[in-house]
Amino acid sequence: MHKECVIKPCDRTSGEQAKHHINQLTKPQGSLGKLETLAVRLAEITGQPFPEITPPGVIVFAADHGIAEEGVSAFPSEVTAQMAKNFSSGGAAINVFARLIEAQLKVIDIGIKGTESIPGIEACKIREGTSNFLKGRAMSKSEASAAVASGRRQAEEMFQSGVKCLIPGEMGIGNTTSSTALLAALSGQSIQSITGYGTGINEAEKQRKISLIEQSLALHQPDSKDAMDLLSALGGFEIAGMCGAILSAAEHRIPVLLDGLICTTSACLAVLINPNVKEYLIAGHLSEEPGHRAALNWLGLEPLLQMGLRLGEGSGAALAYPLLQSAACMIREMATFEQAGIKAE
Amino acid sequence: MHKECVIKPCDRTSGEQAKHHINQLTKPQGSLGKLETLAVRLAEITGQPFPEITPPGVIVFAADHGIAEEGVSAFPSEVTAQMAKNFSSGGAAINVFARLIEAQLKVIDIGIKGTESIPGIEACKIREGTSNFLKGRAMSKSEASAAVASGRRQAEEMFQSGVKCLIPGEMGIGNTTSSTALLAALSGQSIQSITGYGTGINEAEKQRKISLIEQSLALHQPDSKDAMDLLSALGGFEIAGMCGAILSAAEHRIPVLLDGLICTTSACLAVLINPNVKEYLIAGHLSEEPGHRAALNWLGLEPLLQMGLRLGEGSGAALAYPLLQSAACMIREMATFEQAGIKAE
Repeated sequence: MHKECVIKPCDRTSGEQAKHHINQLTKPQGSLGKLETLAVRLAEITGQPFPEITPPGVIVFAADHGIAEEGVSAFPSEVTAQMAKNFSSGGAAINVFARLIEAQLKVIDIGIKGTESIPGIEACKIREGTSNFLKGRAMSKSEASAAVASGRRQAEEMFQSGVKCLIPGEMGIGNTTSSTALLAALSGQSIQSITGYGTGINEAEKQRKISLIEQSLALHQPDSKDAMDLLSALGGFEIAGMCGAILSAAEHRIPVLLDGLICTTSACLAVLINPNVKEYLIAGHLSEEPGHRAALNWLGLEPLLQMGLRLGEGSGAALAYPLLQSAACMIREMATFEQAGIKAE
Repeated sequence: MHKECVIKPCDRTSGEQAKHHINQLTKPQGSLGKLETLAVRLAEITGQPFPEITPPGVIVFAADHGIAEEGVSAFPSEVTAQMAKNFSSGGAAINVFARLIEAQLKVIDIGIKGTESIPGIEACKIREGTSNFLKGRAMSKSEASAAVASGRRQAEEMFQSGVKCLIPGEMGIGNTTSSTALLAALSGQSIQSITGYGTGINEAEKQRKISLIEQSLALHQPDSKDAMDLLSALGGFEIAGMCGAILSAAEHRIPVLLDGLICTTSACLAVLINPNVKEYLIAGHLSEEPGHRAALNWLGLEPLLQMGLRLGEGSGAALAYPLLQSAACMIREMATFEQAGIKAE
């Protein structure tokens, strides 16, 4: 399915045009620092010298993980469904931040445990959670393909309804373990150095998490260049869904604003599927999870914010969105020296 | 005039209540990192466990500097008035960013060269620019007092009209030279280490700027603990105006979101006038001007953003405002575990 995905390189010409225009705006040259770089990148991504990135769309994929039965999280699996209900009633952090940036918000059950359907949540369940990857593959390759295709379709619907910037988010108890395993496999970084405390486990629990990931990698020995093999061995349905959504954004020349470890791991998988995806990615923030820096380095990205966040849901990316919006509005709305009648350039 | 200024310490009780509430919200404890710290600080500042900081108010003071005749800037003095007109017609960076955060924006001519009145700009001219402080005092002590009083009055009007967060900004060709001189005098930092390239001068011009500041400090030998002596020797009318506005914010328990070097120098002067002011300050960003880090260190503040900005006008603080707003909305709007029916805490 992912083979049909046509992703063009970014548009350098639009970037050059944006840069030329920014240098004529009423401010000392270069004085808006990284905001200027960001505006140029948005021009390259969208192919518009005066990029439009409003409204943003937040797409949150929720799913459960078989590995959670090993006690890798401070919370039990039931919390995934409970938090999905919280998203549906508007009480989670991502609801608050999505409202502030006037984002479209779509929440997708792509694999929550249980059969209950939650009002306001799109039901696209691949299965009721993955299998425990300590004992076998997390999902079949056809399930992995189906989850990626579902994410791609869901994101496409958002773009068709007018969304111009994608913020992928997730909820899934156990998903820092899945992401860290995927990241170790694809980046070759040491498991010890990239494993963190997730939702708040203690030191002994973290050591156990490291050991479980080591055993799982030894069991599956996934191909570090093959996203579908990686996803099927160690992945989560929400990680596959985000990967698909990111692929779709790049196809549509829509900037992708990345959140923390889990979201960024999905982006790494999307880049394995199509290397051109990399140019459509912007790093929203640097998470407290140590693997996040490794994932950003693998992608060659520098984060906009460093707020010590470790929540997920797309929350850190939503917090960074006003910077993108400011960059786009700067280039669209500021007067040039000529327009302002200033000859001091 | 500034002796009447009654500024209470922050309200630790409201901060404790905010902290307690944040720990019950539907997210792993501490997972919103610095945003949680920020929410607690806003509670302490406003004296409200559920702080309201909307709408923000941007107050831009514009004035000229006699020292500009020494060629310390990449731009001539005329640009101050031209940029004030640009503010008035909505084309400057601060106009764009103020619109995005739905801020009240007030621009004040507190000492622009020339007698022309600019539509949409409040005329509160103390004088048509300061004197060249290389040759004599920049202003008299009564002018310094009048400028501080004017800033205080202007800010108070904004608070009376409903503004709940203050963003002080400035425009004034030559004002990095004035600020750097003030900062060297009040902090004792070496002039060499805190002098920067301002709007974009070259290395030789920077060396000359350093030498002019050294000569000026030797000439005036201002009292490093006396804000009015410092302002009168080396200050600018816009720096005095911002100092007054910051004092007024602290009096009214309104958070002050600081911009770059010049704004932060004004905050240092306000702290010299009343040390309790310090608790009402939040650092929006870290500027490229090397003196800015020194000023933030003197105040004991860590910046929210590091975007390599060096524009002034309040622009960097306006960019940081959505983080404050997100912190306030997080505590006001997120559901608790109990409200969401989650027993996983």
